[in-house]
Amino acid sequence: MIAGIELGGSKTVVAIGTAGGDVHEEWRFPTTTPLETFQRAIAWLAERGTPEVIGVAAFGPVGVVPGRDEYGKLLATPKPGWAHFPIIGTLQGAFPAARITLETDVNAAALAEARLGAARGLDDIAYITIGTGIGAGILSGGRLIHGALHSEFGHIKVPRAPRDTFPGVCSFHGDCLEGLASGPAIAGRWGQAAADLPADHPAWDTETWYLAHGILALLSIASPARVIVGGGVSQAEGFHARTEALVNSIAAGYFSPLSATPYVLPPLLGQQAGIKGALLLAAPGNE
Amino acid sequence: MIAGIELGGSKTVVAIGTAGGDVHEEWRFPTTTPLETFQRAIAWLAERGTPEVIGVAAFGPVGVVPGRDEYGKLLATPKPGWAHFPIIGTLQGAFPAARITLETDVNAAALAEARLGAARGLDDIAYITIGTGIGAGILSGGRLIHGALHSEFGHIKVPRAPRDTFPGVCSFHGDCLEGLASGPAIAGRWGQAAADLPADHPAWDTETWYLAHGILALLSIASPARVIVGGGVSQAEGFHARTEALVNSIAAGYFSPLSATPYVLPPLLGQQAGIKGALLLAAPGNE
Repeated sequence: MIAGIELGGSKTVVAIGTAGGDVHEEWRFPTTTPLETFQRAIAWLAERGTPEVIGVAAFGPVGVVPGRDEYGKLLATPKPGWAHFPIIGTLQGAFPAARITLETDVNAAALAEARLGAARGLDDIAYITIGTGIGAGILSGGRLIHGALHSEFGHIKVPRAPRDTFPGVCSFHGDCLEGLASGPAIAGRWGQAAADLPADHPAWDTETWYLAHGILALLSIASPARVIVGGGVSQAEGFHARTEALVNSIAAGYFSPLSATPYVLPPLLGQQAGIKGALLLAAPGNE
Repeated sequence: MIAGIELGGSKTVVAIGTAGGDVHEEWRFPTTTPLETFQRAIAWLAERGTPEVIGVAAFGPVGVVPGRDEYGKLLATPKPGWAHFPIIGTLQGAFPAARITLETDVNAAALAEARLGAARGLDDIAYITIGTGIGAGILSGGRLIHGALHSEFGHIKVPRAPRDTFPGVCSFHGDCLEGLASGPAIAGRWGQAAADLPADHPAWDTETWYLAHGILALLSIASPARVIVGGGVSQAEGFHARTEALVNSIAAGYFSPLSATPYVLPPLLGQQAGIKGALLLAAPGNE
């Protein structure tokens, strides 16, 4: 039996399916305390069999690199009660024979979009999500990249948009990308939620400016062949095309990957990207 | 016989040695036209034997990803006569049985510093060079990353240093990182070459600001465990420690890889990094 778990800040998804990302059965429930959340996921799986493989896509920061300190655990997350919780250890205790693979939620979604979604068939892609926070997952040469920790893309610093003096909402950095362009930043700057701002509101000039500079940084460092942008803030009409036009304007013809158009696309898998990515982690070579 | 070629904008190095990076014999000569440069390198190698493997570290942009358009060739370089020159094709014509591996010069230097130099033993590192231009090579999970093209780190956009109004010298972007912080940018802003500016000159506050923001972008995206900074501009006294202090100040405790100190270090291999990296490319798994 192949199992996937998507551990989100507010909801958890547990599923059984295939290492190709097909979901046979899934259950969604609110994320509560670590023990209760994992007990519920484990009980649901145990009723259905004994998993040989469990792919886990978790919110971060989380220890995803084998051999490093705190591998398999949540790290210093501000989410109450969750810091240092042993994800792999808890699952391994319940299913001692299972092979367990842990990834960040955005890396799992990047993998799913690359194998089955809007970047299907590509080996070099980035997946960005813009909602309460901003994160990115990166597939390079067909493999998810981590480095010593994993991407913390939301906390990059980008140039200020013209005339934008909003101080930013990041509790660490103030005006990092997440501090200036996440959903809470938009709400704080304009006094309205992103979903309520019409497509011709100047908020979208500011928002696409910051996102385009973030994408330029990805281009400069990881050189993706395509960038997928999802999350609640990306739903505005024309958002992806406007962002791509701005990336091209800033890039000034320099970056050859941009010639593959469209370059900035919405995800195809929507709400299913995370759990499909968790199942895909079960395939050898994907972990 | 294992051969390495470092193709630089102004000098070329050709060597024979081991896939472990030991140089047995090398020859340095000025880079002239593509045909003359490669004829000289090929003749020098042919006098010594028939290489089974040739590792090439080249200036860019260059096609290093097998299967992509213009793999094995220089791309749209402004260097006269060199655009679209077939590096692999030319060498393969001279040595039909050789396995030829092509990398960017900065990726080769990153590999050499990770295997033999200032980041020895680490699987996740970045190597930055600051001179006439700015470039970076990235090793992630023990592998050099490329994406669809390769890193073009110098062309990232970072926030302006306080009170810096210099327009920048990049012919594409004006005030990208390279436009604001390369050797020519320093000379243009201050009217003096970097090598002539004393360690207490305000130029170094500006310079380390830009470099620290570039390193923050690397941390946010590729999460290296250590960053090596080389190149002519990095030679000022205290340059690496000052840069590291500024990275820590901007990062505000958020990025766990920074706890491994020192984090920003000079290279150990100096002038030998490129040719050693070219030889290391001969080892299976390094290409």
